[in-house]
Amino acid sequence: MRFAGSHVLSISQFDRAAVEQLFSVADAMRPFAHREQMTRVLDGAILGSMFFEPSTRTRISFGSAFNLLGGEVRETTGFEHSAIAKGESLYDTARVLSGYSDIIVMRHPEDGSVAEFAAASRVPVINGGDGANEHPSQALLDLYTIRLELAGRSRGLDGLRIAMVGDLRYGRTVHSLSKLLSLFTGLQISLVSPEALRMPAEVVDELRSAGHQVLETEALEAGIADVDIVYSTRIQEERFASREEADIYRGRFRLNQSVYTANCEPNTVIMHPLPRDSREGARELDVDLNDNPNLAIFRQSDNGVVIRMALFALILDVADQVEKHSGPVNWFTERRF
Amino acid sequence: MRFAGSHVLSISQFDRAAVEQLFSVADAMRPFAHREQMTRVLDGAILGSMFFEPSTRTRISFGSAFNLLGGEVRETTGFEHSAIAKGESLYDTARVLSGYSDIIVMRHPEDGSVAEFAAASRVPVINGGDGANEHPSQALLDLYTIRLELAGRSRGLDGLRIAMVGDLRYGRTVHSLSKLLSLFTGLQISLVSPEALRMPAEVVDELRSAGHQVLETEALEAGIADVDIVYSTRIQEERFASREEADIYRGRFRLNQSVYTANCEPNTVIMHPLPRDSREGARELDVDLNDNPNLAIFRQSDNGVVIRMALFALILDVADQVEKHSGPVNWFTERRF
Amino acid sequence: MRFAGSHVLSISQFDRAAVEQLFSVADAMRPFAHREQMTRVLDGAILGSMFFEPSTRTRISFGSAFNLLGGEVRETTGFEHSAIAKGESLYDTARVLSGYSDIIVMRHPEDGSVAEFAAASRVPVINGGDGANEHPSQALLDLYTIRLELAGRSRGLDGLRIAMVGDLRYGRTVHSLSKLLSLFTGLQISLVSPEALRMPAEVVDELRSAGHQVLETEALEAGIADVDIVYSTRIQEERFASREEADIYRGRFRLNQSVYTANCEPNTVIMHPLPRDSREGARELDVDLNDNPNLAIFRQSDNGVVIRMALFALILDVADQVEKHSGPVNWFTERRF
Repeated sequence: MRFAGSHVLSISQFDRAAVEQLFSVADAMRPFAHREQMTRVLDGAILGSMFFEPSTRTRISFGSAFNLLGGEVRETTGFEHSAIAKGESLYDTARVLSGYSDIIVMRHPEDGSVAEFAAASRVPVINGGDGANEHPSQALLDLYTIRLELAGRSRGLDGLRIAMVGDLRYGRTVHSLSKLLSLFTGLQISLVSPEALRMPAEVVDELRSAGHQVLETEALEAGIADVDIVYSTRIQEERFASREEADIYRGRFRLNQSVYTANCEPNTVIMHPLPRDSREGARELDVDLNDNPNLAIFRQSDNGVVIRMALFALILDVADQVEKHSGPVNWFTERRF
Repeated sequence: MRFAGSHVLSISQFDRAAVEQLFSVADAMRPFAHREQMTRVLDGAILGSMFFEPSTRTRISFGSAFNLLGGEVRETTGFEHSAIAKGESLYDTARVLSGYSDIIVMRHPEDGSVAEFAAASRVPVINGGDGANEHPSQALLDLYTIRLELAGRSRGLDGLRIAMVGDLRYGRTVHSLSKLLSLFTGLQISLVSPEALRMPAEVVDELRSAGHQVLETEALEAGIADVDIVYSTRIQEERFASREEADIYRGRFRLNQSVYTANCEPNTVIMHPLPRDSREGARELDVDLNDNPNLAIFRQSDNGVVIRMALFALILDVADQVEKHSGPVNWFTERRF
Repeated sequence: MRFAGSHVLSISQFDRAAVEQLFSVADAMRPFAHREQMTRVLDGAILGSMFFEPSTRTRISFGSAFNLLGGEVRETTGFEHSAIAKGESLYDTARVLSGYSDIIVMRHPEDGSVAEFAAASRVPVINGGDGANEHPSQALLDLYTIRLELAGRSRGLDGLRIAMVGDLRYGRTVHSLSKLLSLFTGLQISLVSPEALRMPAEVVDELRSAGHQVLETEALEAGIADVDIVYSTRIQEERFASREEADIYRGRFRLNQSVYTANCEPNTVIMHPLPRDSREGARELDVDLNDNPNLAIFRQSDNGVVIRMALFALILDVADQVEKHSGPVNWFTERRF
């Protein structure tokens, strides 16, 4: 994969070399994301942030990443009511909007819409989520987080032991992450879900074809023993016949500190795509885990900024100029935790 | 007209010298809009983008234009619910908001509201559209596009042959464009519309008083022969007694490739204020024209950024400093088409 | 109070030294707010502007203040629908959003929500209004305005004579301003309101405990005689049994030019938190005061930008570097009034 000038629409564009190139650039972005330095490498460039479906944190994560590189952001949130109502095609919308910026990140409620838009765009487009279809930067930040969390341990992405827990049938993030994991070798993967919410067979097949060991189970305790990573996801009420049935399953797949202590290895890392449901009755990740140093969910979110900086730097072909345009940070930057 | 510090509220402020001054500055802005260079001439300046009525593309076009000059944009989209609900006058709103920026672009659903706001504003205000009244930057970008498209041909703005097609009665853009065309000499103008949607008599009179030849017709084929420009507009269903009647008229005024080939000169330029209606049954400009190199509708939209840069540069009196604050562009800028 | 790295959540954090430090920095910000110079001291820094309740002018005032210091703004307006609907806690929202910026200003409809958010935030948080609770920058800009308006007169903040008029019971701004006034000495305070809308007893007690003279009255004429400042507020219809009753009271507490001339000292300064209600029947401050040079309401709003610049500069610890990163302003900056 050649990044410069490319659209990033799907995780399937990435081979192992592209992932490693991206992560290497992401590593170089970290001092800038952490405010140890600043850079103006994209001074004068404009990001078009086109969120035709609201998603505050994805939108702001992309926008902040672009600002951290020195660029400006012009954005829209919600539907282009007037133009859509007047019957404008996605082709026309793309031709017009791509005249306003150097690169576009777009989110849209319909599957395939971002690819259709990208085909008519005159500038590179990053898919920020198109319905149930793809959200590639989420899967990339998940994988990058795994790599960072395991750094310094004996096991890396090759040989990784990971459990995915919860709604594996409808969860877009676990499907995309599985595709990325297929690029590596020798994984042990536990898929922990209610029978009704099992991982789709084609995803399981792809993992097995890649040579990985895959265990499917309904037993949380067995599934999360002997793994490096537990990747938890929401189980949504509307997937079940009744609220009562949903509650039974949510109770059985809930991870809290006592379940963690009883079953996990001492350093098992806990991840989640966020937002997590912290209401009574839901709590796929209990709030009593908040002080557990292996709870990586907020580091995951922070890594999203780093990965998005790396995507911008590679697509706009400035990765090797970031340092040259850098300078000191002179304001208060001490983080509280 | 003196631009520095002035409001731009109406096309009627512009005489021929002002139009030519604006276009000359716009020409100088093109290398910056096309990312051949960047400039920081407005570094530190703030645009207040006050869209009390949504219009994604006008808003982003103005915002990108200001960013391209190095300035920042603070904006609002939608009504100031709380202040309006609490009975605040437009006078007070203007006095307050004009303390937050160096220049304001404002869109508002009510005719005359932007002029009322400007009268109380302490900084220059550009009208970004006030109801059915005015949207001066649209007419200016249309005229600038005509000038650019005809550059290198024997005919310029003087002596221009142009057809305006569709809803000429309610179309704000064709009224404003006609006013601008009155500033030039020796035009041949075909006005092609259903009887019920004819150009208002006072606009026609103004064109004739300026010495132009004006032909009004219901026949598309005759109207678009022997012209340099076809400027097409939407015919909206709600202007007719029934959908069936609307469809008959929309069919008769539709331009597609075969109508173009059969009737137009080989280089006739096709324009449209956008958005165009690409749904079956509408299609005032058929999608089969998309590969026609004379379809100028997206170049028109691109020229909007250039014209808005020129307005900002002139009103804020930095047109002659743009070059001095310029620098190289170091990121990927290759456009796809 | 130490500003660097602190949250600013409540006016009760401020002692007299902190207020004076803030005002001294605000004075240094004025040439930048007035476009006599520009500064890039926060070049590379990001403000997260999180308005979970709309407030156009507070949001833009904070955003412009940050831009004037050279920083970027990423913002959200309205609720984070998806995350809230999915049951995310304010704790999680804060942990995530505080990874996107160097400082956050937040507005939220619920009392105490901003403090709860701040407790989990990894970066400093400024309260931009949490329900009926606090909006500290408003009270600070009010006090700063009083100080500026009285500069050059024999009386300053110590010894100030001030009347507060209107709804003193529910008005958040007069409560907070009163708390700040308690930090100074020897004030004479007239509280002018309908019986039903009297200042809460604890606020009056606090003023008296600080040694100030407090007069409570229903008589506007007596209340506004012999004062340096009249601070007027809205009387809202919904506080009364009927519209008729509301109108009676609104009529009795209305300040206009003839009431002003008949009762006030010639230089009495008129203030209001804005927006004021300019509809017939309301008009707590009549529009016939608009040409009165002592009407300070728009200077008040302008001072909001200056105070917010000072808060940012102190919290991010760059107040003494602003000048070093400054430069000339090269665009048109002449204000109309």
